[in-house]
Amino acid sequence: MKQDYVIVLAPDSFKESMTAKEVCEAMERGILKANPNVTCIHVPMADGGEGTMQSLVDATGGTVHTAMVTGPLGNQVEASYGVSGDGSTGVLEMASASGIHLVPPAERNPLVTTTYGTGELIKACLDHGVSRLLIGIGGSATNDGGAGVVQALGGKLLDAEGRELAFGGGGLGRLASFDLTGLDSRLQHVEVEVACDVTNPLCGETGASHVFGPQKGATPDMIEQLDSNLRNYAGVMKQQLGKDIVDYPGAGAAGGLGGGLMVFLNGTLKKGIDMVVDYTGLEEKVRQADMVWTGEGGMDFQTQYGKTPLGVAMVAKKHGKPVVALAGRIGDGIEVLYDKGMDAIFGIMPGAATLSEALVNGQQNVERTSENIVRLMNSLNK
Amino acid sequence: MKQDYVIVLAPDSFKESMTAKEVCEAMERGILKANPNVTCIHVPMADGGEGTMQSLVDATGGTVHTAMVTGPLGNQVEASYGVSGDGSTGVLEMASASGIHLVPPAERNPLVTTTYGTGELIKACLDHGVSRLLIGIGGSATNDGGAGVVQALGGKLLDAEGRELAFGGGGLGRLASFDLTGLDSRLQHVEVEVACDVTNPLCGETGASHVFGPQKGATPDMIEQLDSNLRNYAGVMKQQLGKDIVDYPGAGAAGGLGGGLMVFLNGTLKKGIDMVVDYTGLEEKVRQADMVWTGEGGMDFQTQYGKTPLGVAMVAKKHGKPVVALAGRIGDGIEVLYDKGMDAIFGIMPGAATLSEALVNGQQNVERTSENIVRLMNSLNK
Repeated sequence: MKQDYVIVLAPDSFKESMTAKEVCEAMERGILKANPNVTCIHVPMADGGEGTMQSLVDATGGTVHTAMVTGPLGNQVEASYGVSGDGSTGVLEMASASGIHLVPPAERNPLVTTTYGTGELIKACLDHGVSRLLIGIGGSATNDGGAGVVQALGGKLLDAEGRELAFGGGGLGRLASFDLTGLDSRLQHVEVEVACDVTNPLCGETGASHVFGPQKGATPDMIEQLDSNLRNYAGVMKQQLGKDIVDYPGAGAAGGLGGGLMVFLNGTLKKGIDMVVDYTGLEEKVRQADMVWTGEGGMDFQTQYGKTPLGVAMVAKKHGKPVVALAGRIGDGIEVLYDKGMDAIFGIMPGAATLSEALVNGQQNVERTSENIVRLMNSLNK
Repeated sequence: MKQDYVIVLAPDSFKESMTAKEVCEAMERGILKANPNVTCIHVPMADGGEGTMQSLVDATGGTVHTAMVTGPLGNQVEASYGVSGDGSTGVLEMASASGIHLVPPAERNPLVTTTYGTGELIKACLDHGVSRLLIGIGGSATNDGGAGVVQALGGKLLDAEGRELAFGGGGLGRLASFDLTGLDSRLQHVEVEVACDVTNPLCGETGASHVFGPQKGATPDMIEQLDSNLRNYAGVMKQQLGKDIVDYPGAGAAGGLGGGLMVFLNGTLKKGIDMVVDYTGLEEKVRQADMVWTGEGGMDFQTQYGKTPLGVAMVAKKHGKPVVALAGRIGDGIEVLYDKGMDAIFGIMPGAATLSEALVNGQQNVERTSENIVRLMNSLNK
């Protein structure tokens, strides 16, 4: 290896074991043990799902904040959001405020669950003066089309008699008009990107209610009602705001929150990994590097569907850089990743172990494996 | 990698999972998947301990045979031995005939356990017409100084009245003379090498009885008797045969079998790994290779003490070749191996798993890891 060898470290978090930043740090410790002349560039990554907020905050030296917000069932929950190091960007995951994990299985009912808390998190970001919002929308408990977000930000959803609708997807069938006069004016100056890996439309057989309703507690009857309600919601959007999103790919993500953010926050839907790659400036860093490392807690054939390591590999291959991935668990079918630009995938486990041992020892296992990869590289260059 | 890249594959067996030959085959499958132009040279290795016979047979395309012989307690046991592909060399492990694993804990008693079965295995090799014997002597149940071997090969141990001694270390105190007139005459034309990694003398505080007696079931009183008996045994050797081995390093190995083989079979004691390295012609193969791979079921700081991977690494480093090791279990302290020529050590586990899963899936894990190592090498050469 030449004297000024540069490696970009762009792993995802290893769920329940390490944040992406911690993975970067463990990789670097191992690399430098084997070759102190290597320069490591840390780019903690994410795929738009869980861990995205933390990784993007870490990528910019930003800060994580907590706020008490309205949970899916209307009770108060503690949620978190991030602000980038330069203060320009707010990052949040809707699941933190409105996630399915916040609702006990027996109480899951998308007729009433609301995204109001997600709107409050957005408001909290605006209070920091951000000019850009990155929003992850996986893991929702809601089917309200983002109505709660609009309400939290000062908009009103009114029925034919001008009365405000209650929380949840159950009331949207009675929606007659929006009153957006009170909508937070700061939104006009904020660019909103939404990480969205699904292409479901708002309504119909492949829409939000039919596809994702059951996992949120919707019965068959409720699904029909929710689907009909969202269709009414979209109809009012079209009629009053001139925006027709009912068949737009991704509008059905997160119970229609995808569509709601498009309409009310002028949001752009992007694949999660693309949003993260863009935001972190990964491509420019890769361009200047000799090699790229990535990784994730588990890698298997599903990694080809937009997960972090593959997204990183595609950027690296665009610039002809070798790509190495580390994984805590290597599952079936990793061969498909080879064809998509992944040069080598190494497990980090030192031997037979329980899952809890694996999770606890993640950092030392990444460090040891990283050291040995560079030791191999050193030996080949002699 | 250049077109005619050559890799020597010199792993030990992965105990309870794969023979060394199977490890070689799994490595080659993985390597060729990643780069079909690589030439793999299989050198299944061993360290003189368990698995040595199988590895040396496999290294020469030889054959394994079984024979009913006299076990440590005098009962019949099925033991095995090997003959090299060219028929010139017999290979055996004393433990196969006279091992501690053949005696239930409650019956362990080195006063009576005998190496007679090991002598029978040697005889079986002689019947194949071999001109060389390689003998591993680890794991013995005996403390008879190899007296049983002498008896099985036609020699007699006599007391002062000219009566033959019974089996075991308990009677050697009454030894007055040897009668070697009946000793198998074929032994005169056979070169004997004994794999021996310990340097204990025959007698005294660091001798066979004191150090290894307890694990064979000897009580403190028995230890004193056994030590005294071996001293008498050595005295008769010196007086009648003119060979003084009582303080010779390694004479105390395997309950004095090390010394017995030196005296009666003119055996040479060698470190196990050195015997295997010599016999397999590893060095000449390494000299012609671009890289050397080794491995073992478990590697840790103890690997520095004469185990296979380190022995292979030392040969490789003598010729400046990169060395990679694969291990099913990476334990503490592998850093010491780096200083001794081991370039890189990779675990093969794909994730959290039970030991039995690890053992069952050894071949696919070696194959996948090998493939990815060469994939990494390919990517660096682009």
